[in-house]
Amino acid sequence: VTDSFERLTDGGITSALGYRAGATFAGIKTAGEGKLDLAVLISDAPASAAGVFTRNRVKSPSVVLDQERLSAGVARALVVNSGCANTCTGAEGYADAVATASRVARRWDLPEAQVLVSSTGVIGVRLPMDRIASGLERVEPRPDGGADFARAIMTTDTRPKSRAVRLALDGTTVTVGGAAKGSGMIHPDMATMLAYVTTDAAVPPELLRAAVRRAVDRSFNCVTVDGDSSTNDSLIVFANGRAGGRPIEAGSPAADAFQAALEAVCVDLAREIARDGEGATRLIEVLVEAAADEADARRAARTVAGSPLVKAAVYGNDPNWGRIMMALGRSGAALREETTDLWIGEVQVMRQGRPLPFDEAAASAAMRAPEVRLRARIGVGDAHGVAWGCDLTEEYVRINSEYTT
Amino acid sequence: VTDSFERLTDGGITSALGYRAGATFAGIKTAGEGKLDLAVLISDAPASAAGVFTRNRVKSPSVVLDQERLSAGVARALVVNSGCANTCTGAEGYADAVATASRVARRWDLPEAQVLVSSTGVIGVRLPMDRIASGLERVEPRPDGGADFARAIMTTDTRPKSRAVRLALDGTTVTVGGAAKGSGMIHPDMATMLAYVTTDAAVPPELLRAAVRRAVDRSFNCVTVDGDSSTNDSLIVFANGRAGGRPIEAGSPAADAFQAALEAVCVDLAREIARDGEGATRLIEVLVEAAADEADARRAARTVAGSPLVKAAVYGNDPNWGRIMMALGRSGAALREETTDLWIGEVQVMRQGRPLPFDEAAASAAMRAPEVRLRARIGVGDAHGVAWGCDLTEEYVRINSEYTT
Repeated sequence: VTDSFERLTDGGITSALGYRAGATFAGIKTAGEGKLDLAVLISDAPASAAGVFTRNRVKSPSVVLDQERLSAGVARALVVNSGCANTCTGAEGYADAVATASRVARRWDLPEAQVLVSSTGVIGVRLPMDRIASGLERVEPRPDGGADFARAIMTTDTRPKSRAVRLALDGTTVTVGGAAKGSGMIHPDMATMLAYVTTDAAVPPELLRAAVRRAVDRSFNCVTVDGDSSTNDSLIVFANGRAGGRPIEAGSPAADAFQAALEAVCVDLAREIARDGEGATRLIEVLVEAAADEADARRAARTVAGSPLVKAAVYGNDPNWGRIMMALGRSGAALREETTDLWIGEVQVMRQGRPLPFDEAAASAAMRAPEVRLRARIGVGDAHGVAWGCDLTEEYVRINSEYTT
Repeated sequence: VTDSFERLTDGGITSALGYRAGATFAGIKTAGEGKLDLAVLISDAPASAAGVFTRNRVKSPSVVLDQERLSAGVARALVVNSGCANTCTGAEGYADAVATASRVARRWDLPEAQVLVSSTGVIGVRLPMDRIASGLERVEPRPDGGADFARAIMTTDTRPKSRAVRLALDGTTVTVGGAAKGSGMIHPDMATMLAYVTTDAAVPPELLRAAVRRAVDRSFNCVTVDGDSSTNDSLIVFANGRAGGRPIEAGSPAADAFQAALEAVCVDLAREIARDGEGATRLIEVLVEAAADEADARRAARTVAGSPLVKAAVYGNDPNWGRIMMALGRSGAALREETTDLWIGEVQVMRQGRPLPFDEAAASAAMRAPEVRLRARIGVGDAHGVAWGCDLTEEYVRINSEYTT
């Protein structure tokens, strides 16, 4: 896979051609200076669309609606609200999601079945339909509205998350950009991950679906904040072809280049989600090499990145390689202890399954870096995988033990 | 399953007939007032023996040795050290485990292959064989040595954990007792769970193996402190028949009664491990009912008990039912949202998948109890299961982020 793309400064969900976004404060969240809680994204042309959603068996009706509508593979718009998850709301919640999409379709004259809906926030509360209706009247999507969109989908994220890359596909310049929100806790609820990516490349629905599936396995599925997965997690990707190139063919060099660009945007957003995990002070990147296959490598990396003991050790700058070995061992990945090597930053702490004497000050310093790199070679094959997480801090406990109900 | 047994006051690993235990301070841990770190348990007669061990792929050679020796189904003794896990020690570590067992066999004139070894403590460090050798000379196993045994296996447990029950089997009084240690963190390592159970009932090896497997699924496999499982986790059960009754037959009422007693001891010890989790201030008991099968019920209960967000909510006395629903949903257990009911203590907070108005003060009070009970009916079948955990506190983070390496 090539990575002949360039990252854009200030890129985001409206960097690609033919997308407009806008947001407003509808009063779904409690009011606050500069707050936004309702966003709309519109593609100027029908777009191929694909999504990946939470596997949680308790699902927001908004997610259910999107899954139904995406089976057609085409979409024009999406509307996202923060402040209310529209979860545990039953048939009424489903009707509210349909009605929200319907309002968007009428306001901007779009086919109703091509409008998607996302919600994040409080569980067990119905969407305030009157506020959403009047809020939608105030939204004015614009080609430079990406930054507002990224802010409006935040819950307790400490900063918005937008990224875009640009590349040439068969002589046509195309852009892939996106926005995401991560782990914020709002009453009485859990973190939700929402991510949206748009491109002006021409990608047939089938190819887009496969590309999104592959990209999510290497990005959002490799990020962990606390192991809890929400009822609303969603990744939705639009490809409207407005850059003007020919449709990408499966198996072509252009397909590879598009895949690399899509993965880059997803990985960049996933890393931002990990970095901005609740209470986090550091990003942890775990690289597992010499695994039996890529799935095993990612499984092992994710288990290390998600281990409370590893996360707490990083917080304490403690080069505690025993916890890393324990997490690798319990991951279920095939592993040969006697050929396992381990590094903390650049410092090798284990060779062939046995501890090495190492420079503890250097290893501890590697754990104080804003991005802490852990690397393991587990000695069974030649596949590798990466996962991202964050440290576990007293602040995480404080945030999540505050009486919010 | 009947539970016609009685719990003994101050019962433990030597409550059953024909067992002696003793312990000493060998200097494997750092010294401290009244510390013990080396324990021996001896059965006066050859005992049926069975064990269940960690599924972590990184395993202590002590565990490997026990698994080999237990294939014969008979044992006479075990030796446990705390302070050193004998893990990531390779072939030398295996030889050290063999040599430790060999010393016990010679000192007390036992068949070497019938001596088991457990270790818990620092990873990556070899057993101090000289200290173990001289320590073993000082150990004097006695029929009332159970309390010393329970203390000697502790690492950073805040209290020893011993339990026993007594019951009549076909007119013979038999005793089942045990000791365990839970989640203590020692340099540079992770929690290890060790548990030992002895009985004077006559239980053929095959029956014992099945009984232990079943008991562990309903007890130790349902306890979670932080989701990290160690390289040394072990449960070992001895049955020496010294109570004098006939061997228990599979499928008999006596087998059922024995199973119930064994499970009671294992559950009691598992609950003590949860209650004494690192930094914990409360025990959380999660009961899941109306599940498709028992495995599903336990999976759902364990996911709730292990969710960092639920654990933090309990710490904060926050009746945050949204987090419980999220954890049930992500457990993978079959669940019907529209028929799910939820209780915090005695307070129902959800009916048929929708939130109820509830007395928040009463629900919050239920979360302040030393034992917090969460109950969910997930509406798909008639199986139930229980799991135990503890709250997530700032103290947990402090303990595990202290620089220990």
